Amino acid sequence: MALSINELVTPCLILNQTTLDRNLSRVHTIAQKAGVHLRPHCKTAKSAEIARRATAGFNGGITVATLNEAEYFAQHGFTDITYAVSIVSSKLKRLQALRDHGVIITVLCDHSDTIEAIIPQLSSSSTPLPILIEIDTGTRRTGVLPDAPELIPLATCINESPSLEFRGLLSFGGFGYKENSPEDIADTAALERTRILDAAERLENAGVQCPVISVGSTPHVLCARSFNGISEIRPGVYVFGDLMMKALGVYDYEDIAVTVQATVIGHNREQNRAYIDAGALALSQDQGFDRNGLPYAKYGLIRQNDSALPHPNIGVCDVNQEHGFVECLNEPYDFPFDEFPIGSIVHVIPNHACHTISGFDRYHVVDDIGQVIAEWPRTNGW
Amino acid sequence: MALSINELVTPCLILNQTTLDRNLSRVHTIAQKAGVHLRPHCKTAKSAEIARRATAGFNGGITVATLNEAEYFAQHGFTDITYAVSIVSSKLKRLQALRDHGVIITVLCDHSDTIEAIIPQLSSSSTPLPILIEIDTGTRRTGVLPDAPELIPLATCINESPSLEFRGLLSFGGFGYKENSPEDIADTAALERTRILDAAERLENAGVQCPVISVGSTPHVLCARSFNGISEIRPGVYVFGDLMMKALGVYDYEDIAVTVQATVIGHNREQNRAYIDAGALALSQDQGFDRNGLPYAKYGLIRQNDSALPHPNIGVCDVNQEHGFVECLNEPYDFPFDEFPIGSIVHVIPNHACHTISGFDRYHVVDDIGQVIAEWPRTNGW
Repeated sequence: MALSINELVTPCLILNQTTLDRNLSRVHTIAQKAGVHLRPHCKTAKSAEIARRATAGFNGGITVATLNEAEYFAQHGFTDITYAVSIVSSKLKRLQALRDHGVIITVLCDHSDTIEAIIPQLSSSSTPLPILIEIDTGTRRTGVLPDAPELIPLATCINESPSLEFRGLLSFGGFGYKENSPEDIADTAALERTRILDAAERLENAGVQCPVISVGSTPHVLCARSFNGISEIRPGVYVFGDLMMKALGVYDYEDIAVTVQATVIGHNREQNRAYIDAGALALSQDQGFDRNGLPYAKYGLIRQNDSALPHPNIGVCDVNQEHGFVECLNEPYDFPFDEFPIGSIVHVIPNHACHTISGFDRYHVVDDIGQVIAEWPRTNGW
Repeated sequence: MALSINELVTPCLILNQTTLDRNLSRVHTIAQKAGVHLRPHCKTAKSAEIARRATAGFNGGITVATLNEAEYFAQHGFTDITYAVSIVSSKLKRLQALRDHGVIITVLCDHSDTIEAIIPQLSSSSTPLPILIEIDTGTRRTGVLPDAPELIPLATCINESPSLEFRGLLSFGGFGYKENSPEDIADTAALERTRILDAAERLENAGVQCPVISVGSTPHVLCARSFNGISEIRPGVYVFGDLMMKALGVYDYEDIAVTVQATVIGHNREQNRAYIDAGALALSQDQGFDRNGLPYAKYGLIRQNDSALPHPNIGVCDVNQEHGFVECLNEPYDFPFDEFPIGSIVHVIPNHACHTISGFDRYHVVDDIGQVIAEWPRTNGW
């Protein structure tokens, strides 16, 4: 008695299981071939079911970005969690509650002020808190530069504290998102790798060992030519893909596993546009990348019927809270109203899956013939 | 044993009850003075507690934008709900379930195709479904133009269907958001009023009565010089205010009732910026308005300590999923790191409250001395 995709009430989040499994398999193969540990970043999927599939064959370690994710995944049996946003002392209490239940939580830091603030919060009776130092390998967000003078004192300070356990180094290779081709991304991935290894070498020369050398970002993981010296990878959006990944040249349209299903709720012939019931909250306002001459709309493209390809000339060009404005992308701006009658269903391909899916509390999982085969809940919030 | 605001784990959504009550009172007074019904748009607050306060002294009618909101508010005792997004037939089943429990649901339409699609879905044993026709008074979104030839046939068709009950006209006065002063907004509010009344007059001349003449948008409601002929108003974001309302000149900083409380999690002295743990999901990516020479940052401003005023030279200039980038807005770009130590708390004033608060599942309600006096849940999703 499987539901057909057409019976779902919109807006809803559609996940194609075949595409998901192919995306997971692609990164499994990369990790196995490179001999690195795969610790997927679950801030994207926020789903125990997807995290189980993503870690199948590995040891079940995952990455999260919020306390809520840490608690959710711990409740679902995940016991090795890296919380990959700079820790602050006010968050230790909730993490300690998870540690008291046997969950290994590894935290991130890039500043001695943080260490000074958290040490007094740690119970002396507990096992030492595992810590990674974040290295800024080029993203210019948080993290210590590989050649920064403060790196060795920071690592030494952690290493010498009985309530902390220095585990190694972590980098977020987000600067690959600035490139425009897999070849160029392979070059920035090489920079991420050499820079984090430079930092590790400095520490090892100073007598501080780095068992963990962790690198992230889906583009870098998919394009890197070498993982020599790297111990683990933390890609996130690879499970779904999106139009940003397509613009970078690392995914094709057929690899994008999630869409937002919406209904055409109105026509405005004077303005030459149709309206759908997916607006700012269902699509997010992430405007992605307008690059490489690909079809582009600020709030996502519309799939052509029975195809993973987008309409080359139709997109979601504006949003209000619950209205999406579907318009022509190029002249002559002659909107094909007959193709989108009121009440018809469309599938919006997201610019940035991590943000688009954040409004939804579940995935409607579908097979290749449009049958809804499962509902997988996802968590949100903090 | 009230919690202090400083003990909350960030990011979290702070609601100042005094400011909220003052904002509610301002619109209560407008509605009472004008003798119009107040039917607040609850797509913004999505909270039964706030909706109860907003409708106190009126008859409890509210406006919603999603089926989820309709169901949530019905569960919390609201029995007169206008669903103010163009109806499509696939949504009738869930609405009918509410109607079967005695909730009056009024729906919106602007096209005869919609009427043809929904009539076969309606049970003949049920009471007629109340319908409003949306009039496009200037927003150029959904709605029938006041002088459109199709208006009278559409209303007549609804009026003559035994399963439908024509209730009148509704307009969303969103075009006031394009103006830059209360005086100019008063002019567009006057246009909204005269245009919807023109449409009503056409219908009444054709023998179709319009008991409901409903206008919306917070700027229009706050600035309108007259509500003559209007039966109800549907403002939404007035409960909170935000930087967009400040830019329009209809709210002052002191009137903004919600902020996102965040923690400084890092410094990047090379890049001259600090990071907070409120990013794209906690702040939304709504970039608001850069108008009228006011301080502006793409993702919100930072309150000065012990004040409702923003730092004139500091704002959230970029976001990743869980990172906010706090930077100087003007030269000399000399970030005051000492004022924002790692671990310190900041309050981000939202550009657009409706979108910023959508990631949160509750309000932390505070009094004027920073004590947390309540937690009010809110609903999300569809």
